[in-house]
Amino acid sequence: MLRQSTHVFTFDTRGRGLIEITQPIAVWVAASGMTQGLLTLFIRHTSASLVVQENADPHVRGDLERFFARLVPDGDPLFLHRDEGKDDMPAHVRAALTSVYLAIPLVGGRLALGTWQGIYLWEHRLRPHRREIAAHLIGV
Amino acid sequence: MLRQSTHVFTFDTRGRGLIEITQPIAVWVAASGMTQGLLTLFIRHTSASLVVQENADPHVRGDLERFFARLVPDGDPLFLHRDEGKDDMPAHVRAALTSVYLAIPLVGGRLALGTWQGIYLWEHRLRPHRREIAAHLIGV
Amino acid sequence: MLRQSTHVFTFDTRGRGLIEITQPIAVWVAASGMTQGLLTLFIRHTSASLVVQENADPHVRGDLERFFARLVPDGDPLFLHRDEGKDDMPAHVRAALTSVYLAIPLVGGRLALGTWQGIYLWEHRLRPHRREIAAHLIGV
Repeated sequence: MLRQSTHVFTFDTRGRGLIEITQPIAVWVAASGMTQGLLTLFIRHTSASLVVQENADPHVRGDLERFFARLVPDGDPLFLHRDEGKDDMPAHVRAALTSVYLAIPLVGGRLALGTWQGIYLWEHRLRPHRREIAAHLIGV
Repeated sequence: MLRQSTHVFTFDTRGRGLIEITQPIAVWVAASGMTQGLLTLFIRHTSASLVVQENADPHVRGDLERFFARLVPDGDPLFLHRDEGKDDMPAHVRAALTSVYLAIPLVGGRLALGTWQGIYLWEHRLRPHRREIAAHLIGV
Repeated sequence: MLRQSTHVFTFDTRGRGLIEITQPIAVWVAASGMTQGLLTLFIRHTSASLVVQENADPHVRGDLERFFARLVPDGDPLFLHRDEGKDDMPAHVRAALTSVYLAIPLVGGRLALGTWQGIYLWEHRLRPHRREIAAHLIGV
């Protein structure tokens, strides 16, 4: 019989950068006892995002960070929204260019992540923040 | 008992820019009577997109618009697809850089949107268009 | 009564570029017999992505490819992750800028794709690869 479960995760970031959150998410999915279904995550902020990226070479995370810093420069005079500092509006743009939600099927008892895929919370603000991620799981 | 509901929303845009659609979406979700579940939206076009962004300072929407206009210039000679004008192909690129769908869990009787998050239809064409968004809701 | 189905699709790409996969996906959805529900796709790689784009003028795919090649140049000295060649890290960035999953409601017996929308697997590596897409369908 199909059933569902929801949960709100809280993560403390250490400022700008990618934090892998695969483990706590996978533990919650496993605890549900479901073996086939769909996981959806949604980050409740507009200056952080969710991405699935390579979890092998840590250079990938550094390169992503450098690319986005160049593409969306902090303090760009184009931006009028500067209330919270030079990294405020760039954080919103980075969230629009990536995503605030993601969906991963649960197949054969585990999340369908590829061998080299991890789930990351990408903090776009320079300073540490507490971030909430709403999770929804449906399946059998 | 889990159940689902679908609906197709129609919105008339006034040309390029972000339109907040949180209210009609939330009203439809509330009318379902569901308190826990998952909402998915899908825009049936490739020159408009769906984003979750800050709903407080209107500068954010202007800044997003200016950033994308600079990143994907109208009339860029790189583009061969110009049948419908200089904003035609840039609209497709903007849709690829953002997204045409989004998913938001329904937790504790309401959409898990953060305090400052709103759902936006982003019209990428210069002229007004009628846009359709297919919605799916599943839950209890 | 709500039910679900999962499947893992395999596609062989011919190197960088967009491949339309609407047909095999739509055939699988039709075979389920469901007429109302939600389809979710997830590509199990971090150097390829899933996008919904125009399926009419083939120039759109060429323009998308040229735009992303200019935005994220192969061999950019910014990138330290070069183990698999000059197109390795750009492929990860392209995947972050687009998406590795997508969700489309099933309404009135068919996927809610617009008239000109197709589902595409976007191979970001220069050489051909075998790519897996996990699919989840829930509905009635």
